[in-house]
Amino acid sequence: MNRRNGFLLLIGFCLALTAQAQTKTADVCSYVDPFIGTQEMGHTLPGATVPFGMVQLSPETDTIPYSVNGRYNGEVYRYCAGYQYTDPTIVGFAHTHFSGTGHSDLGDFLIMPTTGELQLNPGTAENPESGYRSRFSHEHESASPGYYQVLLQDYDINAELTTSTHVGMHRYSYPKTDIGHIILDMNYNIYNYDGKVIWASVRVENDTLVTGYRITRGWARNRYLYFAMTFSKPIKNYGMKSDEKLVYKGFWRKFDESKNFPQMESRNMVNFFDFDVSDGQPVEIKFALSAVSTEGALKNLQAEIPGWDFEQVKSKASSDWEKELEKVQVEAAPDKLKAFYTSLYHAFINPITYSDVDGKYRGLDGNIYQADGFTDYTVFSLWDTYRALHPLFTVLQPKRANDMVVSMLKHYEQSVHHLLPVWSHFANENWCMIGYHAVPVIVDAYEKGIRNYDIEKAFEAVVNSSTHKSYDGIGEYMQYGYVPFDKVSNSASLTLEYAYDDWTIAKFAQSLGKTDEASTYLKRALSYQNLFDPSVGFIRAKNADGSWKKDFNALKTTGEGYIEGNAWNYSFYEPQDVAGYIRLMGGEKKFTARLDSLFEMHLPDEFFEESEDIDRVGIVGGYVQGNEPSHHVPYLYAWTSSPWKTAEKIHHIIDTKYNPEPDGLCGNDDCGQMSAWYIFSSIGFYPVCPGTNQYVIGSPCVNQASIEVGDGKTFTMKANKLSEKNIYIQSVTLNGKAWDKTYINHEDLMNGGELVFNMGPKPNKKWGVAADSKPYSISTEDTISTNR
Amino acid sequence: MNRRNGFLLLIGFCLALTAQAQTKTADVCSYVDPFIGTQEMGHTLPGATVPFGMVQLSPETDTIPYSVNGRYNGEVYRYCAGYQYTDPTIVGFAHTHFSGTGHSDLGDFLIMPTTGELQLNPGTAENPESGYRSRFSHEHESASPGYYQVLLQDYDINAELTTSTHVGMHRYSYPKTDIGHIILDMNYNIYNYDGKVIWASVRVENDTLVTGYRITRGWARNRYLYFAMTFSKPIKNYGMKSDEKLVYKGFWRKFDESKNFPQMESRNMVNFFDFDVSDGQPVEIKFALSAVSTEGALKNLQAEIPGWDFEQVKSKASSDWEKELEKVQVEAAPDKLKAFYTSLYHAFINPITYSDVDGKYRGLDGNIYQADGFTDYTVFSLWDTYRALHPLFTVLQPKRANDMVVSMLKHYEQSVHHLLPVWSHFANENWCMIGYHAVPVIVDAYEKGIRNYDIEKAFEAVVNSSTHKSYDGIGEYMQYGYVPFDKVSNSASLTLEYAYDDWTIAKFAQSLGKTDEASTYLKRALSYQNLFDPSVGFIRAKNADGSWKKDFNALKTTGEGYIEGNAWNYSFYEPQDVAGYIRLMGGEKKFTARLDSLFEMHLPDEFFEESEDIDRVGIVGGYVQGNEPSHHVPYLYAWTSSPWKTAEKIHHIIDTKYNPEPDGLCGNDDCGQMSAWYIFSSIGFYPVCPGTNQYVIGSPCVNQASIEVGDGKTFTMKANKLSEKNIYIQSVTLNGKAWDKTYINHEDLMNGGELVFNMGPKPNKKWGVAADSKPYSISTEDTISTNR
Repeated sequence: MNRRNGFLLLIGFCLALTAQAQTKTADVCSYVDPFIGTQEMGHTLPGATVPFGMVQLSPETDTIPYSVNGRYNGEVYRYCAGYQYTDPTIVGFAHTHFSGTGHSDLGDFLIMPTTGELQLNPGTAENPESGYRSRFSHEHESASPGYYQVLLQDYDINAELTTSTHVGMHRYSYPKTDIGHIILDMNYNIYNYDGKVIWASVRVENDTLVTGYRITRGWARNRYLYFAMTFSKPIKNYGMKSDEKLVYKGFWRKFDESKNFPQMESRNMVNFFDFDVSDGQPVEIKFALSAVSTEGALKNLQAEIPGWDFEQVKSKASSDWEKELEKVQVEAAPDKLKAFYTSLYHAFINPITYSDVDGKYRGLDGNIYQADGFTDYTVFSLWDTYRALHPLFTVLQPKRANDMVVSMLKHYEQSVHHLLPVWSHFANENWCMIGYHAVPVIVDAYEKGIRNYDIEKAFEAVVNSSTHKSYDGIGEYMQYGYVPFDKVSNSASLTLEYAYDDWTIAKFAQSLGKTDEASTYLKRALSYQNLFDPSVGFIRAKNADGSWKKDFNALKTTGEGYIEGNAWNYSFYEPQDVAGYIRLMGGEKKFTARLDSLFEMHLPDEFFEESEDIDRVGIVGGYVQGNEPSHHVPYLYAWTSSPWKTAEKIHHIIDTKYNPEPDGLCGNDDCGQMSAWYIFSSIGFYPVCPGTNQYVIGSPCVNQASIEVGDGKTFTMKANKLSEKNIYIQSVTLNGKAWDKTYINHEDLMNGGELVFNMGPKPNKKWGVAADSKPYSISTEDTISTNR
Repeated sequence: MNRRNGFLLLIGFCLALTAQAQTKTADVCSYVDPFIGTQEMGHTLPGATVPFGMVQLSPETDTIPYSVNGRYNGEVYRYCAGYQYTDPTIVGFAHTHFSGTGHSDLGDFLIMPTTGELQLNPGTAENPESGYRSRFSHEHESASPGYYQVLLQDYDINAELTTSTHVGMHRYSYPKTDIGHIILDMNYNIYNYDGKVIWASVRVENDTLVTGYRITRGWARNRYLYFAMTFSKPIKNYGMKSDEKLVYKGFWRKFDESKNFPQMESRNMVNFFDFDVSDGQPVEIKFALSAVSTEGALKNLQAEIPGWDFEQVKSKASSDWEKELEKVQVEAAPDKLKAFYTSLYHAFINPITYSDVDGKYRGLDGNIYQADGFTDYTVFSLWDTYRALHPLFTVLQPKRANDMVVSMLKHYEQSVHHLLPVWSHFANENWCMIGYHAVPVIVDAYEKGIRNYDIEKAFEAVVNSSTHKSYDGIGEYMQYGYVPFDKVSNSASLTLEYAYDDWTIAKFAQSLGKTDEASTYLKRALSYQNLFDPSVGFIRAKNADGSWKKDFNALKTTGEGYIEGNAWNYSFYEPQDVAGYIRLMGGEKKFTARLDSLFEMHLPDEFFEESEDIDRVGIVGGYVQGNEPSHHVPYLYAWTSSPWKTAEKIHHIIDTKYNPEPDGLCGNDDCGQMSAWYIFSSIGFYPVCPGTNQYVIGSPCVNQASIEVGDGKTFTMKANKLSEKNIYIQSVTLNGKAWDKTYINHEDLMNGGELVFNMGPKPNKKWGVAADSKPYSISTEDTISTNR
């Protein structure tokens, strides 16, 4: 039985006859629900995108100012991806969105079709008639990978969106009327504030082609995005509205600029284009992006969507998704299939393709570069994604993983700070969150054999990024062996994450035979030890004079030297040396008890009031699944004599924190990290310590998963007898042989083969407990004194 | 006797022995005084530039806001080139300036060296201590082609400037002190207003290299200029001041951005760089420009000034000027030499080289283009310069004249309006003044054999530019045969100038064998006839219904359908058909009487109050030399039986309107048009009707002029017996043969040869009066009915 047939048989034998008649394309895409995560915390988007495409063409459901009366407006947070499921109106469809972030930007080039009296302001949700927005209903809305559709009720316009990598395609079917308007609001922004648009330009090249660009600031200091937009019908009339008095206009009124003036520019501009729709034919738009130039956008347009076949573009988008998603063939209950494939879908949105079809891209220094032999990617939310998303790419997207490394090295070369990216998007560094986590991404890729770049340059980059003394406490960290609380905020989190990152540099140095550097960084990798306070049994912030931070509170997420976490969670952040930390804590018993308590404790309400990005819906006891710092924590039992405890946690999280509903995600998807956790955990293992070749075994949540690992090889995980109750591992075989280790190796995966879990209702407390069955720790495997 | 020796002998035999010891470079450059025109109306600049160079590195003597309390501030007009000779302080040295314009922009990248307490605002002229500016004195100031020097008295810093095409070089000699500051004011602008800087960025790449750019608006809608700046010493400290609260900064304070933060960006920014100057060594700066990118600027820097030899750069700039200026070897009295060579110097500043050393340039559509096989030029002030400056280039700069045509055709191709440039600078069209005068520039070049471009494209461009119906009355002009006064302002001036431009298109069409188009445009060329009102004997604005504009006033320059002129002057604007206009006026007698009256009348004071760009200092009777519309008028006697009358006018203008002093220019030099008039007129002829191959003879004002006309040929003009009194032509020989025509042909010039004027104190009233001695007119030479 081949893989495909097996899969179909399992999801429903009774459907097999009709299913075989389906095109291959429709298969796994049908499990994806782009609405998952679009309500409240998920911050995902329902619109059209292709895998790692530059365009996310998606609806915006409101216009929320970033600040009101000069103060941050918390409401904007819900609109990180532009769409909130419970909103009653749609403002329009913009072409760029982050997927799942917890701070935001973008929302470029909002298009909205309308009829009747021309309105050039969005209006309000309370009074949609006051502007161009429209009511909508989920009954008349649908989405699938690469396609989105909604009925704009106020205008009776059916809006359909699809896309290629750089080019969004719109189809607006108007009711019987004479004139259809297309609004292009150059002033719309996600996380908008007055003055965010530095400059906007729209050029009407001819009666079907419009080019333009805008420069915005905000999370990005200055971000350039160009477009070329072409219509399926000739423009009848066009124009603009701007609140701004242009000094320019006062001078030489050679043209009547009030109508059909083809060169529209402003810092604050809404444009419109009118079409004759009396023939009943829809207005279609192809809208191409480029970070380089309008010329680049036009090239992208011509290369990717030369014709006007909306259905073909939609079908291509769907089959592109199918190709990516079917790399993992999963057998599971329908709800789990939906959650799994939607997770895989969310994992393959960010980073995005940044270079044009001709390889040109705008570098971090503002210059235009040629990406020869690679695709340049942007949108690196590295504090989130180094954990599991980038490791997932090493398995499922090795070519892209390589090019992401190259993109980060180019960033490093173009950086005036000579730093690898921290959180970068569209040739900007926004410095969001902490650490130098491009480092573990690069080292993990290298260690997994992804090496088509300048390796010495990569080593230089990781060393320079980890020794930039003026950056976020690195100088103090190097001086004191920890980041002092009284000098730098987030000092405890910084110390822990720097120490892990440094361990990956040590690993890289070892692999390159650089023994001196290996030794230096292995020592730095143990810096976490300097912050362990035996008197409280937690990692605790320390001042420069060696004194502990006063009034320690292990629950608090602010004021304790942590960022988006507390001592209860962050104290477990030594993925490079779990065994060492166990010893530091006073042995396995204490460690296990603390882990148990974390998952069982009850958090007081105050906790949630003070904690950014942490919500009651995303927690298990005191453990936080809804944010990243603890994602590896359920797997830490693997280092103890009760590895079976992981199973309960994993299944609980999988079953309760990833409901396949709009409000089903328990926290920001964070560019796919939350999804990557789900994917790995469902299959039964997780990359606790990227940079090692190990995936730590948890407990599989799907019956079977077959993974295309390249070169025609397939790795198959089977979970025999898995059921709601049978969540405990009884035994494991790898390629038919008994497997007692609590991890498997990357090579085991990539060579293909079969990992079989035999599941049961009670733990086999003997499995995975032998001393040699434990995953990597510095303290057990690297020859270095752990006493400093 | 070779040319060089003859020249030296004539300018002063007694100096011959020492003069022969001079380097060739010092010769004609020594007659140039860059201060001429820097006081009041000339709007020239005293700073350092090379022929047609991108950089004009020149002092700014004040910061004048474009508007005060929302109203235009007339004071800004005096600062079109940044410098006013009578000002007491210098604010700094900026890298870009127009030469002689009557509206302005630029002033990019102001550098100012200071000592003592760091001040980051310019302060005021009344209280220089309130800012970084300094007092200066003309006693400690000097300038020569390619070099400027001034003592900044408040700091005792000697400032020296020189330049190459794209790279300005500064040398600042500090007094004995520890720290020297270099201020870089990214917010300084000529014609400044709040918000003119759209974005500014400064990146400190390392301790000697800084890159950056700014985007400004104003006369240009959005103008991009990049730089790369390198210092001769390491920067000790640097920083910025901005009035702007950056939303950006609020987020992630990973760095201490208050000091030595290498990525400085704002809309309102003043930067500083501190140097250790205790060693007594000057701080030198190489400052490269590019309209493309910082990468382009760096390439320009490395290509043009790789080393640190200020004297060598200065010497190269001087010898570049020498090469250009010595193309015309003139013998005349010292004051005339000074005026002549300074005019030639001013004629060779604009247009400027716009493409980078690698040929890249920013096109009008914002895209980056490769100039293959040509240099891209910008700064086309065409309403001014089509008259004599571009014709001068066809003689002295044929290669550049060709590339200027190519540059204008590229502009046309990149124009969203599909129009040739009107007044363009730095990839922007500012639409200043009227007409489509790129057309005569192109046709004149073509007719004079400058043809290394796509000729059919050129024809398409001139036709499209002259038939763009929505542009400045062209549609009405085509409909009515004139621009109606009640529909379009400046209707009379427009009709006259369109008619002339159209004649050149007819000429072009004839040359290309396009007889239909030739006929069409020849008819359009006679449109001036539709506005001649016999009842007043002037060209008069007419309404769409055929009625004359009411309450005609031939003196008024506003409200009569003229721009920057009145009926007295503008009525003579039919260079393509002087004979036709003479007939229309009722014959030569009336025509000559009117011309005589123009030069003899007395203008009332009210005239000057209402007339922009016209000053009493620039007039002769009612004739205006200080502005362009009448520049050809003194030569119109050549079509009459008293051609000798031109002599009096020319000599009077040459002697009184071009004093070789700072306040010597009688009007804006207008990118060299005023200077080109002087150059042609001094030598004895003027291109009254570019597009013909004729130069109309006036009366020479220099004793001899030898012009290098290419291919090793020299054209020599000799004015025998010329003196203050002997201004009248007695007889003329061309290549030894008697010459009775009132014009010579371009071919006579370009073949080399000798034109000899024999001068006397009284007119020879028989010379040049024969019917066949007259220059071209449609009515006498083209077979078309002049009655419409």
